[in-house]
Amino acid sequence: MKVVVHVVLKPGVLDVQGKAVEAALHGLGWPGVADVRVGRTIEFDLPAADKAAAEAEARAMCEKLLANTVIESYRIDAE
Amino acid sequence: MKVVVHVVLKPGVLDVQGKAVEAALHGLGWPGVADVRVGRTIEFDLPAADKAAAEAEARAMCEKLLANTVIESYRIDAE
Repeated sequence: MKVVVHVVLKPGVLDVQGKAVEAALHGLGWPGVADVRVGRTIEFDLPAADKAAAEAEARAMCEKLLANTVIESYRIDAE
Repeated sequence: MKVVVHVVLKPGVLDVQGKAVEAALHGLGWPGVADVRVGRTIEFDLPAADKAAAEAEARAMCEKLLANTVIESYRIDAE
């Protein structure tokens, strides 16, 4: 089963990468761009009986490895 | 307008970060995980008249800054 995990910084956590991108976009001629946030996605194939099982496994992976849950939140899409 | 840009490595380009995550997941007890690919998302607010205009601007941003189009492809979602 194909699983996509989206990891983003929690609201309120300073996104320095986003700030750098925002400053670069302003400099390149898009002064109106605001609130830039950079996240990451992890896609993978997972052998699982059904969608619920895949999501449960992916959640465990996020808690253990894929996300730093102190500062990041994650969303799981299993297809 | 809220814009989300998804950037992923093109098929065939070796994803070393994905390989590292895959090896770590195997070591943590998920030997069945395969084809791990890591991408990134850039979310931002953009003043634009309509969805088509926002997408056109975001496409220009991708070509200039957000994606390395030699090895990466991108997808734009404007809402």
